Amino acid sequence: MNLDKLQEWLVSTGNDVAYISDPLSIAYFTGYSMEPHERIFSLVALKDAPAFVFVPALNVEEAKASDWNGDVVGYLDSEDPWAIIGDEIRKRTTKHKNWAIEKINLPVAHFQNLRSNFPDGSFTNDVSGFIERIRLYKTPEEIEKLKGAGREADCAFQIGFDAIRTGATERSIAGQIDYQLKIQHGVMHESFETIVQAGKNAANPHLGPTMNTVQPNQLVLFDLGTMHDGYASDASRTVAYGEPSAKQREIYEVDREAQQAAIDAVKPGITAGELDAVARDIIKRAGYGEYFIHRLGHGIGMNVHEFPSIVGGNDLVIEEGMCFSIEPGIYIPGFAGVRIEDCGVVTKDGFETFTHTDKDLKILPLKD
Amino acid sequence: MNLDKLQEWLVSTGNDVAYISDPLSIAYFTGYSMEPHERIFSLVALKDAPAFVFVPALNVEEAKASDWNGDVVGYLDSEDPWAIIGDEIRKRTTKHKNWAIEKINLPVAHFQNLRSNFPDGSFTNDVSGFIERIRLYKTPEEIEKLKGAGREADCAFQIGFDAIRTGATERSIAGQIDYQLKIQHGVMHESFETIVQAGKNAANPHLGPTMNTVQPNQLVLFDLGTMHDGYASDASRTVAYGEPSAKQREIYEVDREAQQAAIDAVKPGITAGELDAVARDIIKRAGYGEYFIHRLGHGIGMNVHEFPSIVGGNDLVIEEGMCFSIEPGIYIPGFAGVRIEDCGVVTKDGFETFTHTDKDLKILPLKD
Repeated sequence: MNLDKLQEWLVSTGNDVAYISDPLSIAYFTGYSMEPHERIFSLVALKDAPAFVFVPALNVEEAKASDWNGDVVGYLDSEDPWAIIGDEIRKRTTKHKNWAIEKINLPVAHFQNLRSNFPDGSFTNDVSGFIERIRLYKTPEEIEKLKGAGREADCAFQIGFDAIRTGATERSIAGQIDYQLKIQHGVMHESFETIVQAGKNAANPHLGPTMNTVQPNQLVLFDLGTMHDGYASDASRTVAYGEPSAKQREIYEVDREAQQAAIDAVKPGITAGELDAVARDIIKRAGYGEYFIHRLGHGIGMNVHEFPSIVGGNDLVIEEGMCFSIEPGIYIPGFAGVRIEDCGVVTKDGFETFTHTDKDLKILPLKD
Repeated sequence: MNLDKLQEWLVSTGNDVAYISDPLSIAYFTGYSMEPHERIFSLVALKDAPAFVFVPALNVEEAKASDWNGDVVGYLDSEDPWAIIGDEIRKRTTKHKNWAIEKINLPVAHFQNLRSNFPDGSFTNDVSGFIERIRLYKTPEEIEKLKGAGREADCAFQIGFDAIRTGATERSIAGQIDYQLKIQHGVMHESFETIVQAGKNAANPHLGPTMNTVQPNQLVLFDLGTMHDGYASDASRTVAYGEPSAKQREIYEVDREAQQAAIDAVKPGITAGELDAVARDIIKRAGYGEYFIHRLGHGIGMNVHEFPSIVGGNDLVIEEGMCFSIEPGIYIPGFAGVRIEDCGVVTKDGFETFTHTDKDLKILPLKD
């Protein structure tokens, strides 16, 4: 169980307490998932006593009914959560000198509140790196969930392609995707806001769907994903609505070649930076290097963006069981944007993608 | 302009730099709104030089095209953002000794990265409290946006009531609401996941919509909200599907009375804690005190939960222009849950709600 690994880490590193504050890390260790908004939610792991989950009172029943079998400690909105955490720890153990916190997540104010309740404590250690490292390698069970999320993303593309017609707003197409996913496929959450971008809007990689309408002979970019049993999908496809121009075709084919080359290059032993270069070199040689303005990819798992980062300069060696996206893009301001993205898992000699929607340039017939 | 207030605060408090990291704070000061996920996004305000916005390269064009008229500094995924921030500050000013950070938001790791680039800097000051205080008071323009969001929430209730029928899943009703809001009303974002809970599911205040189906003679609880021009709505209604039992009616009427009494009690001069007590005392006297397991309300604005917190023990004096929710609830495990919630603004002698959906117990006819 994942929590055992955390307990072992505490012992081996000489820490007494690990204070876990990222809701995804808590879900990873406990099986209990929750979004606390501004309230305090944490997992407190102790070297020589059982861990407990700390939640707002209104989540206590939910936490007890979840996959988490350990203690659940609640607090009312009118109580001081930090004092209660302090009391609970002291009740369980006399060892609370050396703390490890999630520095990449814990806000400075929370850190200071914790510290002021344990004036003799040392709070210099960071458990973030350990959590990132163990989450880098997905188990077969996790990979099955990622494949399930990928199947939903494939369904979503089909819904989106079917919804394209002249005059349809990006937003209405995105709305159709979300609605049909929920109704037909029981998808409760997207992993991020469904992106549909027509024509020059697609040159702006992170622009949400607008009231801009699809018009004949545009490229339309989809970037979408779902949450499936706590695991995310994330995939992009770009299609032509009506006959594409030579230039549209060209940037599509360059991006397609770059994406396939990077997928083909994945195997244990290559570095993240080398993978990025495989795709980037193809786009550069075709003269579009300046229009590929982001990294090649990012890890995926419980979070839609996690480690490893597939980016130039990252010497991390790719290993079996790592899961990430391969998503080169070409964004030409005022003209069009193309991105093709699949997430997948590193196998013993290659890369198995979680999404399978065809990547030959799809030319959709015009519809009124 | 809001940024001017931040510059004035810097001068009056003797700070040289304010490092603003909460995307909502940045939107409040700059008019530019963005969700950076794990990337670095900040507003750097300087005492004696113009502020700049710091964004990932793929957001530079979007930031420049936004309402923000100042400098935009970008960084590539392959670059060290902290070094670039340091260089940019030194380019603009020699004064960077005293820093104020948003302690309630800034993760410890980011704080340490900033500090290591300014080894002579002092990082003890917190700008969070100042931002919370100025955001407590809404301008007439902000109140108009909150009213716009409230109108959308009223539309959403109607869509939800119409979608209730025997055997409909909570999730399909929530999906209908989100879809119709997008298609009919152009609502791009909900302010949080639309909650529909039938029967005993409503006793668990934060449970998302499930595949549980609506059955005759249940209470059905809706909690929903939209984002309208950067401002949130948040409202709850509970309706009866078919004839309610005496007990269902009783808890509804107790909650209704508590909510109305609290709304009637709002005026400048009362404290947040006193307001909470007005509603809580009514529910306690009716014998349901133990089932009201959260605070009476929370502030609303750009964030669906912000200050003030309407909670027992909070001596904050309510003033004109503050905006918050009044949302008592009664949650009886295994039986049912009721919550009635409106957000509104404190006027010179009362409270004007942003939502207007009727609160007499609505009894919906059974539908197959």
